[in-house]
Amino acid sequence: MGTTQPEAVPEPKYWHLKTVLSDALDSEFAVGEILPNERDLAARFGVARATLRQALEQLELEGRLQRRRGVGTSVAPPRMGVAVTDAGPNRPGAAGDAWQPIGSAWEAPPAAVARLLETEPGACVHIVRRTRRTRGQIVAAELLYVPARSVPALAAGPAEDSTAVLHELQALPLDGQDRSVELGSAGADEARQLDRLPGSPVLVVTTRYVAAGRTAAVAVATYRADTCKLTFGESTPPAVALAG
Amino acid sequence: MGTTQPEAVPEPKYWHLKTVLSDALDSEFAVGEILPNERDLAARFGVARATLRQALEQLELEGRLQRRRGVGTSVAPPRMGVAVTDAGPNRPGAAGDAWQPIGSAWEAPPAAVARLLETEPGACVHIVRRTRRTRGQIVAAELLYVPARSVPALAAGPAEDSTAVLHELQALPLDGQDRSVELGSAGADEARQLDRLPGSPVLVVTTRYVAAGRTAAVAVATYRADTCKLTFGESTPPAVALAG
Repeated sequence: MGTTQPEAVPEPKYWHLKTVLSDALDSEFAVGEILPNERDLAARFGVARATLRQALEQLELEGRLQRRRGVGTSVAPPRMGVAVTDAGPNRPGAAGDAWQPIGSAWEAPPAAVARLLETEPGACVHIVRRTRRTRGQIVAAELLYVPARSVPALAAGPAEDSTAVLHELQALPLDGQDRSVELGSAGADEARQLDRLPGSPVLVVTTRYVAAGRTAAVAVATYRADTCKLTFGESTPPAVALAG
Repeated sequence: MGTTQPEAVPEPKYWHLKTVLSDALDSEFAVGEILPNERDLAARFGVARATLRQALEQLELEGRLQRRRGVGTSVAPPRMGVAVTDAGPNRPGAAGDAWQPIGSAWEAPPAAVARLLETEPGACVHIVRRTRRTRGQIVAAELLYVPARSVPALAAGPAEDSTAVLHELQALPLDGQDRSVELGSAGADEARQLDRLPGSPVLVVTTRYVAAGRTAAVAVATYRADTCKLTFGESTPPAVALAG
């Protein structure tokens, strides 16, 4: 139907191994089971350690394997569905909010956030740090950026505590919100909160809260990409993991 | 506020280099500019090639760099916002659909899709392959799975062409749709369509179309994670890239 097909791309070495390993996981291993060490696995499949490692990284990316420091590589359970649209019913901090505040600061946001908020470069805003738990596990870390104009009852400057900022946000008449989802890598702080290594792939959800046609607040949430899939929509979300 | 903090995680070697490189990209390079080769870069920053490569991979994950075969590593433009909720107004193939059909097949879907469709394992369904273009570039490849019961006017078996399946889908009264977004890796076919290497990170969007309380069709779309961010919601999406 008239689509140009780019020329065939050579298959990397580890690709076939990944398929073979994936079948072995299905047929020989149970969820949570620890795999043999890399040397034994490489010997069993007759490949170099480097090739094996690439295949394992791939399977980790697809959510099939979990690697934990000091534990080893185990077969991952299916990814948890985490409802993004239900996370903040109307506004951050409202009843039923899935997020727990863990602290706050009065600092200049990154340039990209300042542009969304239409604040001056270098100008300070309230920053509330929050985490989200699903089934007892921290699945996401968030920075919520609130300019002083959105919480006029608070004095500009460090807030007494994070609840004060969230409480004042409740008074703001919000028009709506929009979101983007993109791939990112965990920064040092998020990595600590999510119990991942810095640089681990994460899903970054940026939510813009709109009031009176302007951005009233911006939340940048970092979800673990290994254990979570984000769900959107009215009906019950798909119950299975589907990875490329 | 009573959140357990996991013990501090050691910062990997390449982490500091990544930050330094990121600042250099901001201050010294323009979008599209090709970086010096790895040997020169490693020498300039006084690091081993392996460390440099890790930092470059990280910046690619965050959408700051693009690596193309035979071209080299260049500074990436900001990620394109691709509206997911606008992709299929009500149903696949309706007017305004962002997806172009490129072929169809009559095959058994993967087990996970069969479960969503509630078809027998191994039973064949219509599979329509589609791609989505944004600003002239293919940003996503999709497999749309349609069980025979959802298109009763078509004979079971290979459809005459993909448009026939999409056309018959228009007759189906849909109740709604829900979605999940997760990290995946490009399979060989998607990689070819997206002009990426197999195994490249992708964002996998699974859409379930619901009719009469049942799953009427399932679409599994694979978006390039390097150049796209997915947008959701009513207002104009955030205009800037925000990576971990």
